[in-house]
Amino acid sequence: MKALVYYGPGKRAWEDVPDPEVIDPEDAVVRVDAFTICGTDLHILRGDVPEVQPGRVLGHEAVGTVTSVGAGVRTVRAGDRVLMSCISSCGRCRFCREGRYGQCLGGGGWQLGHLIDGVQADAVRIPFADGSVHVLPDGVSDEAALMLADILPTSYEVGALNGGVRPGDTVVIVGAGPIGLAAVLSVGLYSPLQTIVVDPVESRRAAATAFGADRVLSPDDDVAAVVRELTGGLGADVAIEAVGIPATFDMAVDVVRPGGRVANVGVHGKPTTLHLEDLWIKDVTITTGLVDTTSTPMLLSMLQAGRLDVSRMVTHRFGFDEVPQAYDLFDDPVGSGALKVAVLRG
Amino acid sequence: MKALVYYGPGKRAWEDVPDPEVIDPEDAVVRVDAFTICGTDLHILRGDVPEVQPGRVLGHEAVGTVTSVGAGVRTVRAGDRVLMSCISSCGRCRFCREGRYGQCLGGGGWQLGHLIDGVQADAVRIPFADGSVHVLPDGVSDEAALMLADILPTSYEVGALNGGVRPGDTVVIVGAGPIGLAAVLSVGLYSPLQTIVVDPVESRRAAATAFGADRVLSPDDDVAAVVRELTGGLGADVAIEAVGIPATFDMAVDVVRPGGRVANVGVHGKPTTLHLEDLWIKDVTITTGLVDTTSTPMLLSMLQAGRLDVSRMVTHRFGFDEVPQAYDLFDDPVGSGALKVAVLRG
Repeated sequence: MKALVYYGPGKRAWEDVPDPEVIDPEDAVVRVDAFTICGTDLHILRGDVPEVQPGRVLGHEAVGTVTSVGAGVRTVRAGDRVLMSCISSCGRCRFCREGRYGQCLGGGGWQLGHLIDGVQADAVRIPFADGSVHVLPDGVSDEAALMLADILPTSYEVGALNGGVRPGDTVVIVGAGPIGLAAVLSVGLYSPLQTIVVDPVESRRAAATAFGADRVLSPDDDVAAVVRELTGGLGADVAIEAVGIPATFDMAVDVVRPGGRVANVGVHGKPTTLHLEDLWIKDVTITTGLVDTTSTPMLLSMLQAGRLDVSRMVTHRFGFDEVPQAYDLFDDPVGSGALKVAVLRG
Repeated sequence: MKALVYYGPGKRAWEDVPDPEVIDPEDAVVRVDAFTICGTDLHILRGDVPEVQPGRVLGHEAVGTVTSVGAGVRTVRAGDRVLMSCISSCGRCRFCREGRYGQCLGGGGWQLGHLIDGVQADAVRIPFADGSVHVLPDGVSDEAALMLADILPTSYEVGALNGGVRPGDTVVIVGAGPIGLAAVLSVGLYSPLQTIVVDPVESRRAAATAFGADRVLSPDDDVAAVVRELTGGLGADVAIEAVGIPATFDMAVDVVRPGGRVANVGVHGKPTTLHLEDLWIKDVTITTGLVDTTSTPMLLSMLQAGRLDVSRMVTHRFGFDEVPQAYDLFDDPVGSGALKVAVLRG
């Protein structure tokens, strides 16, 4: 079969690899029908995630059809159409028993396209299938479901839930890439008073407006001053960091009010400076996190019911024979205007 | 009357000042019967809190007897024995209405010995008396009540509550000064599995043991390794920072498990480095805060019922004519072995 193989920083190939097989009783093998590329895949290709070894098949966001399962799998069977979540869970460890699947100690967590071969391929082996895939309800398209493999549950759990967003809140989202835009949707489920999105790229600010942002700003604006002006001088109730660099984290901390919350969603490669000399007295809460995907069933229900609209997210579509082009385009989001790209089986 | 007046970094005097008077209908004037000195007062004297102006009477922890009240005061009257909390509250602003009195926008918050004259004096004017003093129940001594003016509610609210301490938790407390020791008591109310206290001074480690710590460590130990060994390799559920310097904050972040919480209580004068490149994926929550004193009535009830023992906290006692000596001794805690000093009316 074909797969997108990582060969060290800057090197990737869409090439022939051996077919996956069931090797553990809890495995499923799934034919991939659609997948997408994550900003994290680009981080890996830049060498920012050193635990990813050369030879690894990338990808952790896909939809497919189960072709075989091990003897220990109870909840899915061959022929089932499933969402493959970025997070696997053993279901047995301390953290899985707390619903904190992202921190699984038993061989789950973020495995696909990270520590084991991923989903950017014709087929994939999924460990702990019972705890790692979601059977898709009728009426949910492959392309829509793809948005629930990572970006929607991540923005919902690590952004809106960790941020403690409540109705009537003023929420600042720093960054309008796919995660930031998914955060606009996630925060929108809580009826905020106003959602303010900051991004340097005009096309992404326009996308944020289309997704429901009430106000968009450039980092060249005096963001903190505008936020204060829009909040009676106090600052935002919640700030969601959706980029992953020191400047955007600092901005998120800077715009939040006394008693407010900063939810970091971005994948960081460097430390930042925390201004405790200002913060110690401000009653601020800062959270970090990896998605657990506990919200995926709820998000699927909302998608099926038409209460969550992810249709604006996929801007470009490719066939399985165009994966290198899909990567090239996604790696130039400013030039291409790409948000998410869908790679679809013909 | 006499008062302890701040005259800029390193300069203080116990000297004659005018008597306080009721100047607003919500004021009370209180004769001070006992007060104590806070580490924050030493910070002020080092020039770390620049908003404190020369000429300011210091002090925000006292017990006294009301001598007069303004026409708008409803809940206390002349003759009442009261605890003067470090936090005043207007009761009307957005944050007071949320119980977040420390962030009061209406002229309360941390006022005493900071933005208005404080309690290290024969008498003091207390603004917003209804929301700022607590009538003392019978059977609670002045000396015990003093411990509830700041350090107990601070360690309880900003440490244990913000840290989300739960029964069975492993809690690391970094620092065994008065706030760290009060944190040992506060955390103890939640039946932790084990409380581990880190401090460089042997006498303070011994005090931590006396206060109920299960294990004491020096920062020269490999603290993170010992904590991992005591927690099945995972790290502490909660870490409470009770010092206020970058090294101790870093230690608190370092010892906490995935999904754990770091509650900063220390007063910081400098920024620190936040290792987001490690933390982003760890589901860690970091909180900062100023005490609100919402827990003061509960703590007073626990004190009265004999369920909270603060008797080990006061190590040295002075008369009102010995305030300079009390400051000198408190400023050398390692040499003197002082925890809290009580200045008591003879």
